[in-house]
Amino acid sequence: MADQDVRELTSDDPPVKARGLEGVVALESSLSFIDGQKGELIYRGYDIHDLAEGASFEEVVYLLANGSLPTEDELAGLRQELRSERTLPDPVLDLLRNAPDDAHPMAVLRTAVSALGLYDDEADVMEEAANRRKAVRILAQIPTIIASFDRIRKGLDPVAPLDEGTMAHNFLYMLNGEEPGEAAERIFDVCLVLHADHGLNASTFTSRVIGSTLSDMYSAIPGAIGALKGPLHGGANREVMRMLLEIDEQGADPAEYVKERLAQGERVMGFGHRVYKTMDPRAAILRDLVKELSEEAGEMKWYEYSMAILDTMRDEKGIDPNVDFFSASTYYQLGLDPDLFTPIFALSRTAGWTSHLLEQWADNRLIRPRAQYVGDRNRSFVPLQER
Amino acid sequence: MADQDVRELTSDDPPVKARGLEGVVALESSLSFIDGQKGELIYRGYDIHDLAEGASFEEVVYLLANGSLPTEDELAGLRQELRSERTLPDPVLDLLRNAPDDAHPMAVLRTAVSALGLYDDEADVMEEAANRRKAVRILAQIPTIIASFDRIRKGLDPVAPLDEGTMAHNFLYMLNGEEPGEAAERIFDVCLVLHADHGLNASTFTSRVIGSTLSDMYSAIPGAIGALKGPLHGGANREVMRMLLEIDEQGADPAEYVKERLAQGERVMGFGHRVYKTMDPRAAILRDLVKELSEEAGEMKWYEYSMAILDTMRDEKGIDPNVDFFSASTYYQLGLDPDLFTPIFALSRTAGWTSHLLEQWADNRLIRPRAQYVGDRNRSFVPLQER
Repeated sequence: MADQDVRELTSDDPPVKARGLEGVVALESSLSFIDGQKGELIYRGYDIHDLAEGASFEEVVYLLANGSLPTEDELAGLRQELRSERTLPDPVLDLLRNAPDDAHPMAVLRTAVSALGLYDDEADVMEEAANRRKAVRILAQIPTIIASFDRIRKGLDPVAPLDEGTMAHNFLYMLNGEEPGEAAERIFDVCLVLHADHGLNASTFTSRVIGSTLSDMYSAIPGAIGALKGPLHGGANREVMRMLLEIDEQGADPAEYVKERLAQGERVMGFGHRVYKTMDPRAAILRDLVKELSEEAGEMKWYEYSMAILDTMRDEKGIDPNVDFFSASTYYQLGLDPDLFTPIFALSRTAGWTSHLLEQWADNRLIRPRAQYVGDRNRSFVPLQER
Repeated sequence: MADQDVRELTSDDPPVKARGLEGVVALESSLSFIDGQKGELIYRGYDIHDLAEGASFEEVVYLLANGSLPTEDELAGLRQELRSERTLPDPVLDLLRNAPDDAHPMAVLRTAVSALGLYDDEADVMEEAANRRKAVRILAQIPTIIASFDRIRKGLDPVAPLDEGTMAHNFLYMLNGEEPGEAAERIFDVCLVLHADHGLNASTFTSRVIGSTLSDMYSAIPGAIGALKGPLHGGANREVMRMLLEIDEQGADPAEYVKERLAQGERVMGFGHRVYKTMDPRAAILRDLVKELSEEAGEMKWYEYSMAILDTMRDEKGIDPNVDFFSASTYYQLGLDPDLFTPIFALSRTAGWTSHLLEQWADNRLIRPRAQYVGDRNRSFVPLQER
């Protein structure tokens, strides 16, 4: 969005009403920029294509938090800090053991991250250095929460985190109890890079609204996880996979399936975006990855279903897929359970959420819009006995 | 805010920028209305003075959720439903036992309410009737969480909730292990009425932002609790009490204390409000209650300190106290620990949060403003080895 296109509201202006806050700029940010017309996404000035191809997730974490790509020493320092914080406090592990096996993994993640705050002596220390340490700590512990809960609910023992390797490597190791292949690790790492930040989406906005009261990171991140849990936000990739699995089980023709769904007025998840007017660049990168993954595995059906749905949606509705559409089949082909897709989205987006909080606190202002009151007025109170 | 003073943004308008979203109407609501110029607050059309004088907290809960004051039968039904939901699931009680004694009670409350979602089979059922049941359930369980944790951290056994009596009565009973006096119960009930809703404040806004992704109540309420925890929002009444206690311990003159604080550029908590340009009507009601409570107890010092601070702030800064200023000494004189003030605020505001969620979901639209990107562009990617 070019600066000249934005009109700054002054105190002389009448209140402006914008339902859902569409078209309203709530704050300034240097973290990521989306050019919806061109289908471009940048983090701190770097194009997402360059980062997906050339940078690891940890480099992106550093970039988002610090504004520049790390040197080898800086990266080694961050990796070491992340590794040293992977182990969960025992009571948080107990909480995971006590959770019902069929609990929503996002509800478990939300609760466990909130609980981490109870065991962090720095939870309420709001100095920047402490907040930076907490950002690393939360990011290091989320993979352990997700993997541990997944194993516990399957009746398996949680796997203790490695004290070496990347986040992608360690997460897949903790989940499966064995070291991941090189290709799987690399593709998973790219997925983490692609989901790390995306402007002021609803969950990032949530984290900044909570942070703007000068509340702490263990309050803001569970709030963001809660927002991401919603079907209109991060929940979509799970729904995409549900659709692909349904097509597969029914032996349905994907194009016919989509047309029927549209005819019945139902939504096809994973398409359209409030910001992108063309194809989401992350979807394009993931499409190529899914294709590669499918060819390596010799199993093309998910890719083929996806492409058939994509073509049908373009023909019927003229809309393009978003990142959720291709992340679904990528994660599925990596062997991840569909209900872990959104927690993994949260894992990656924690890099963005925490960096947005650091940015918010560096120049804080309470975020508090108004409501327009459209209810009753001047009602006369009638005591209970006379009602 | 009169309708004619609001300009609705159309899709032809350029984006409008408003830091902190001040002056922006994000949504319509029929729940509560604040006339900042006149110092008036209404819930669903009823003046807060009438409700504080004539309605119990449960009547206000019903009013906010349903739009009308309950008949005797309707009120009896709600009271019965609330009573039947007071007991916590065992794992949530375990979580409270496992929390460190010195944990922030708001962090404990945030975590425990999030955990309740793991044990509610209806957590992800988004039909209105289910959401209404969850609203009652969460409201019924929050007092048990607060009181149980307070007793556990003091080395006492939690007191099981009564299956009779009002919320105010039961909460004070669970906290102290003995039935409250009539005056204490009535005053506490008025405090709950006064804090139940207040337009689109930061925590209520948080709950609607989270809800707007169609995420569930157990995601939205912990987010709201997290926002309320912040010193710029609900954390203020705790800070007010800290100030009063400091004045008392130092034997300081309250007026001099305040002047010195101002001279040093420090903030005096409990004063000023973004919306009220005159005295917060809730502060006026509480002021009278504190005076009454002080006279009954024969202990006027907190009231006197407060009035001296109020006069000094008016003289020096020309600003009036807000609700936090007098709720601090009210709660303190009711024997409540200062770090429970904000959890009690949350208890009451849960009535508003859940009603706002029901209103949001009745006509949902994703709440998603934009950020203005002010960061770098077109940076050339340099591989790690070459940095």
